[in-house]
Amino acid sequence: MKLEQAVCVEDMARLARQALPRIAYDFIDGGVEGEVGLARNRSEFDRYKLLPRYLVDVASRPQTVTLFGREYTAPFGVSPMGLAGFFRKGADLMIARAAAKAGVPYIMSSASCDSIEAAVKEAPGTTWFQIYGTRNPDITMDLVRRATALDVPVLVMTIDTPVIGKRERNMRNGFRRPMKMTPDVILQGLSRPAWTLAYLREGGIPMMQNWQPYAAAGASADDVADLYGTETPAPGQTWEILEAVRAAWPGPLAVKGVLHPDDARRAQAIGADGLVVSNHGGRQLDSAPAPIEMLPAIVEATGGRMEILVDSGVRRGSDIGKLLCLGARAALVGRPAMFGAAAAGEPGVAHVFRILRQEIDLLMGQMGWPDLSAARPECLIDTRS
Amino acid sequence: MKLEQAVCVEDMARLARQALPRIAYDFIDGGVEGEVGLARNRSEFDRYKLLPRYLVDVASRPQTVTLFGREYTAPFGVSPMGLAGFFRKGADLMIARAAAKAGVPYIMSSASCDSIEAAVKEAPGTTWFQIYGTRNPDITMDLVRRATALDVPVLVMTIDTPVIGKRERNMRNGFRRPMKMTPDVILQGLSRPAWTLAYLREGGIPMMQNWQPYAAAGASADDVADLYGTETPAPGQTWEILEAVRAAWPGPLAVKGVLHPDDARRAQAIGADGLVVSNHGGRQLDSAPAPIEMLPAIVEATGGRMEILVDSGVRRGSDIGKLLCLGARAALVGRPAMFGAAAAGEPGVAHVFRILRQEIDLLMGQMGWPDLSAARPECLIDTRS
Amino acid sequence: MKLEQAVCVEDMARLARQALPRIAYDFIDGGVEGEVGLARNRSEFDRYKLLPRYLVDVASRPQTVTLFGREYTAPFGVSPMGLAGFFRKGADLMIARAAAKAGVPYIMSSASCDSIEAAVKEAPGTTWFQIYGTRNPDITMDLVRRATALDVPVLVMTIDTPVIGKRERNMRNGFRRPMKMTPDVILQGLSRPAWTLAYLREGGIPMMQNWQPYAAAGASADDVADLYGTETPAPGQTWEILEAVRAAWPGPLAVKGVLHPDDARRAQAIGADGLVVSNHGGRQLDSAPAPIEMLPAIVEATGGRMEILVDSGVRRGSDIGKLLCLGARAALVGRPAMFGAAAAGEPGVAHVFRILRQEIDLLMGQMGWPDLSAARPECLIDTRS
Amino acid sequence: MKLEQAVCVEDMARLARQALPRIAYDFIDGGVEGEVGLARNRSEFDRYKLLPRYLVDVASRPQTVTLFGREYTAPFGVSPMGLAGFFRKGADLMIARAAAKAGVPYIMSSASCDSIEAAVKEAPGTTWFQIYGTRNPDITMDLVRRATALDVPVLVMTIDTPVIGKRERNMRNGFRRPMKMTPDVILQGLSRPAWTLAYLREGGIPMMQNWQPYAAAGASADDVADLYGTETPAPGQTWEILEAVRAAWPGPLAVKGVLHPDDARRAQAIGADGLVVSNHGGRQLDSAPAPIEMLPAIVEATGGRMEILVDSGVRRGSDIGKLLCLGARAALVGRPAMFGAAAAGEPGVAHVFRILRQEIDLLMGQMGWPDLSAARPECLIDTRS
Ligand SMILES: Cc1cc2nc3c(=O)[nH]c(=O)nc-3n(C[C@H](O)[C@H](O)[C@H](O)COP(=O)(O)O)c2cc1C
Ligand SMILES: Cc1cc2nc3c(=O)[nH]c(=O)nc-3n(C[C@H](O)[C@H](O)[C@H](O)COP(=O)(O)O)c2cc1C
Ligand SMILES: Cc1cc2nc3c(=O)[nH]c(=O)nc-3n(C[C@H](O)[C@H](O)[C@H](O)COP(=O)(O)O)c2cc1C
Ligand SMILES: Cc1cc2nc3c(=O)[nH]c(=O)nc-3n(C[C@H](O)[C@H](O)[C@H](O)COP(=O)(O)O)c2cc1C
Repeated sequence: MKLEQAVCVEDMARLARQALPRIAYDFIDGGVEGEVGLARNRSEFDRYKLLPRYLVDVASRPQTVTLFGREYTAPFGVSPMGLAGFFRKGADLMIARAAAKAGVPYIMSSASCDSIEAAVKEAPGTTWFQIYGTRNPDITMDLVRRATALDVPVLVMTIDTPVIGKRERNMRNGFRRPMKMTPDVILQGLSRPAWTLAYLREGGIPMMQNWQPYAAAGASADDVADLYGTETPAPGQTWEILEAVRAAWPGPLAVKGVLHPDDARRAQAIGADGLVVSNHGGRQLDSAPAPIEMLPAIVEATGGRMEILVDSGVRRGSDIGKLLCLGARAALVGRPAMFGAAAAGEPGVAHVFRILRQEIDLLMGQMGWPDLSAARPECLIDTRS
Repeated sequence: MKLEQAVCVEDMARLARQALPRIAYDFIDGGVEGEVGLARNRSEFDRYKLLPRYLVDVASRPQTVTLFGREYTAPFGVSPMGLAGFFRKGADLMIARAAAKAGVPYIMSSASCDSIEAAVKEAPGTTWFQIYGTRNPDITMDLVRRATALDVPVLVMTIDTPVIGKRERNMRNGFRRPMKMTPDVILQGLSRPAWTLAYLREGGIPMMQNWQPYAAAGASADDVADLYGTETPAPGQTWEILEAVRAAWPGPLAVKGVLHPDDARRAQAIGADGLVVSNHGGRQLDSAPAPIEMLPAIVEATGGRMEILVDSGVRRGSDIGKLLCLGARAALVGRPAMFGAAAAGEPGVAHVFRILRQEIDLLMGQMGWPDLSAARPECLIDTRS
Repeated sequence: MKLEQAVCVEDMARLARQALPRIAYDFIDGGVEGEVGLARNRSEFDRYKLLPRYLVDVASRPQTVTLFGREYTAPFGVSPMGLAGFFRKGADLMIARAAAKAGVPYIMSSASCDSIEAAVKEAPGTTWFQIYGTRNPDITMDLVRRATALDVPVLVMTIDTPVIGKRERNMRNGFRRPMKMTPDVILQGLSRPAWTLAYLREGGIPMMQNWQPYAAAGASADDVADLYGTETPAPGQTWEILEAVRAAWPGPLAVKGVLHPDDARRAQAIGADGLVVSNHGGRQLDSAPAPIEMLPAIVEATGGRMEILVDSGVRRGSDIGKLLCLGARAALVGRPAMFGAAAAGEPGVAHVFRILRQEIDLLMGQMGWPDLSAARPECLIDTRS
Repeated sequence: MKLEQAVCVEDMARLARQALPRIAYDFIDGGVEGEVGLARNRSEFDRYKLLPRYLVDVASRPQTVTLFGREYTAPFGVSPMGLAGFFRKGADLMIARAAAKAGVPYIMSSASCDSIEAAVKEAPGTTWFQIYGTRNPDITMDLVRRATALDVPVLVMTIDTPVIGKRERNMRNGFRRPMKMTPDVILQGLSRPAWTLAYLREGGIPMMQNWQPYAAAGASADDVADLYGTETPAPGQTWEILEAVRAAWPGPLAVKGVLHPDDARRAQAIGADGLVVSNHGGRQLDSAPAPIEMLPAIVEATGGRMEILVDSGVRRGSDIGKLLCLGARAALVGRPAMFGAAAAGEPGVAHVFRILRQEIDLLMGQMGWPDLSAARPECLIDTRS
């Protein structure tokens, strides 16, 4: 299959599987434990049907949305993903550029390989920044400081990672964090020699550039990854860290990883402007509900006064349409963008965006939505009620 | 398998699959995107069970129904399908003739290959005509004028195609509309040499004869297909076009593709006499409900004062029986008739009718229905309630 | 697998499949149309769970039940099945004898190969007789007369066969009724040479001895089968035939094939003493509910004043236990007995009885049922409510 | 797969399957009849989702629980399992030791191979003792006397075995109880020569040491197994035996195998201190509900005044978490420990404990549970309501 032949987002996963050694593909694709939650993230979308209206003038169907005061060209963006550079050298910036060209937001992870400074330089209006609480809160606060200096449009604080989920595929494949290239791992790489050669040519594990400033001068890529692994996750962090971030950061703040309506309310009380309702793509708690299950209760809890984005399992334009009907402002995709980058670099990411945009376009046509404000709860039929 | 060995409608799909190259079979058989809706069209029938009554005199079991003032011999007919001539030269007229002989309605699509004039000539009492809104409304109105001149029994206006659904099988197979015979497509044809030879002998892509009058004099089949592809779909069309058609057309008017009860009500207010509740066989909106799910609400919304037909996924006599119980006057089949024509020409279509008629006959015997007025809601058990 | 190795009823199906040519096995095993109902007959049993009670004295666990005034040793019997002699010469009498030895009822079909006179002679106390309405009601009435002369314990009138269901496996295999040994059929037989040789040695299609008296003197087996095929089914028969049978037959009368509570009430009003709630083993109406679904409503409709038996899909002791909890007096098995006879003759049938009896025995032990009167609705948990 | 590579409990089943002949593996793994209940024990856990809370300080996550007045280091223990020594010589004591080292309870079965005296000697604080009612109640009472003499922390009386369930895998494999090494069984053993050689070297079937005192002096292992098979199960036993045990035993008493809330109440009235809600791992009544289904009603029935443990199908830390949310004090695992012992001896059992402990640790982190008292009903989402 060539890139142009990928007709849907899942085709991009197939392309990536062809390009990557199993240890790398599984790192991206995998969930936790029995991967029940991973499957549920998809199946919960099927719970809803969409009831179309016809003979509405849908000759023009703009997908524009406003998120935190800025306009984007489509109701989707890219979730923050660490380690992208491991899968393809420079992947972070590829995604950043593709998003900028498409006019959609890309949330750079602080665990990325390229730096936020580089990303903002290449893709200034559309690059948001995501941080984690660290054991030493000074690091978190310094990341906030850098975001402020760069004037990123939105700062995202992820809270659903007090511990790292049990990723059994990684355990079986011998993937470890901080990542070390053991002979075992290299052996697995031999099934995808092109990828492995490139990887070795680049000098192995890439530097986590956002974290380099916090390591000793001259620290190697491995040293920095070790530091990252020591400082995160930070299970002792509480709502105080969010308060500190809120106090320090002047711009729009979104909290990512919220599933409980009370946590949503708490974030709102602290002054967060938005949420990413997410179960981390099924990578943290296998028994967690799918975000779409919690969305209505969270919209209600926050009284419509927070901007709500959703990710985890979004693969089709219709998934996005359903989320909008239930009150989301936009959806985010994680793996699809990473697969795009791993399979074909920036054009791969652009292709994913093109597919989603086209599916939304046809959905709007079918549903009789001249614009996205027409996506309302009445358009949905819930199979379960 | 020979035609006589086809014992059920699905066998006809198997026969067609043997006869057609994949690109052609998939065009007929396929749905959109993940084909969730296609599967749902079947599974929703299984939601209902039928509760039989015994020791009723069912020695005679007439299947007669009256549709828009005319009597037909069975409670089913054929949905409009474009491009039939591509699958088998002359397929439109084969279906028309088989329907006339069987005494059931056949709805010719305006996107057919043979012309409505030819069809009415061969099958006068049973050929209905289906139109789409076109970008240039004059074409729609001229099609209405021709229907009026031919005095077709019923005019059907399809409204569920403001855009064309994303048919991923076509994309994968390289099928394009307007259809062009690329080397790639021909290559696929080699696996079914009989079909391909016949196709080439006929001179390739057949002329869309209903549209020929709207093209320049001397336009080729490809030119006409191009024109069709420019004029449809017409996403800017609104209820005004239905009003115009209603004003121009003196006979019974049915609106096809309605799923929302409010759209049904609107069509009724404009003066339509009937509806085809349909999701276009799962070919337009993958998340759409199955028609049988919406049927009760639509029957209620229209207060029993519209004649309601249903299609999408009808494959068994019992499917038809269930629809009648829920308030439909008759059911339509799309693909089954097309598969019949593709596999074995007019006798193939007749065989499909025979199968359905026999299944309905046995169903009436089992249910204790001396005629179809006995098919009532009380006969159904809904698994979900 | 040898007979002793068959540990459950489904193993008997496996043994029969090994012994019979496909055309014969499928005739027994098959349902109608898509065989949705066949699967539902099994799955509806799984809908119910059983809640055990412990530390009840279950040292002795008699399975005795009283049916129509006579005592039997277990709460199950054998459903009437025609054509048994086709599958194994003398099968009717094998089942009759096995039932008599086990002390459970066997309902001989009037479409059997051996005669009711022979069966009653071999198995007097336990052989019941089942009749159909015939086009010429004199035949029905003469069968009643013979049952009266033989003083069979119970007469069963089957009402769920106004027409014959569409048995697609038979259509595909070339099985026809009245059965004729075409070359095609014989060809199929070659895969099971032992069965086919025995079949041919016996002189082909066996005589339907119950019907022989109604054919012309000297009629061949085929002639009698033809007569049977002309006289049944009798779609014109109404409740009047049941009234006539009721008037003529002095003993206990059960009506078989009832699914609708109103039909149950009607049979009760006419004076029937019992019912067999049944969907004919999924062989008549593919969309019919499973009998267990209708049982509670039928028990209620008849106010506990009819003796209710149930068949269709019973394969486990726990299935029988669930039916008893919902108000049945006993269950019947069809195919299991036929498979037993086809695979291993009378010992095969006895083995099926032994398996069921043991499963019921252990069920009573587990449930804390010292006898079967302890099987009550409170013991059930309905998964759906 | 090596032991260290087993990442989840189910991997331990895979390891055991590699080590054991089928007859032995199936004895452990199997359920009864169609094994519907076995599957349900797993699927009912998936019915519940867990709703996480974030930004709670979960830097320290002690798993300590108090059971019957003693503290254990994790909310799980090992269910009683007979015959362990058949699967690996000395398995009972291996499990006992592993449990003691891990600080979790191990319930020795009175049908074990090693004696309770030996187990208490090796693992004094953590070894509980499980008894059955016997036909001759003196044996039961003597087992109680021995438990008293040994001062075991908890005595468990299992009541769900008035008869032995129909274990079809054992029937197919030729496994019989009391177990005899027939040539057939030995033949099966040849596929796992290492196991079989060890088995033969040890002198075949191991002595049931807890029962040796009740057999004649000099009785062989087979004789003792015969005695056991005569004395149990004891279907005539009633609540009187529990009263007698309660009167004789001064320590904490738990009743195992309760599913009905009324049985729970009765046990409470007799003075039992705790329950093991269990369906014997799906080995007794195939139609029984999963314990988690009955847990809420049993917690309510006993008014929170009994200590409630649950087993049957527990395989993940999240299963245990869900049970705690619904009111259980702890969970027990049966097969996982046996598989651990069979595959790798004491280290195998320890590995199972390690896996569960780690999964609970991560679950507590994700859920925002600083200790296990935070596991409450509000944390659950029931898919069915
Ligand atoms: C490879 C990978 C790395 C990720 N890294 C991060 C991260 O650094 N920060 C974060 O908040 N979420 C991270 N996530 C979670 C994503 O932001 C997002 O929630 C998830 O991927 C959405 O689900 P989807 O992949 O099904 O679209 C990561 C996900 C993946 C697949
Ligand atoms: C090959 C094909 C062509 C079709 N063309 C048209 C068309 O021209 N106009 C229209 O209203 N519907 C069209 N339809 C939809 C059918 O009218 C009908 O709604 C659908 O086929 C019913 O579902 P079924 O195929 O499952 O019976 C087409 C369907 C197929 C399969
Ligand atoms: C081979 C066969 C022949 C049958 N013949 C008759 C019959 O002559 N009369 C009748 O009332 N039912 C007949 N039945 C239906 C059975 O009486 C019974 O209702 C059905 O087999 C019960 O379902 P089970 O086979 O799943 O147990 C027949 C069923 C089979 C399988
Ligand atoms: C091999 C084996 C032997 C068992 N022996 C006993 C026993 O002697 N006494 C008892 O109360 N339960 C016995 N059980 C049942 C267990 O105590 C426990 O209820 C069950 O194994 C829990 O389910 P799980 O295996 O799915 O964790 C046994 C179970 C197995 C698998």
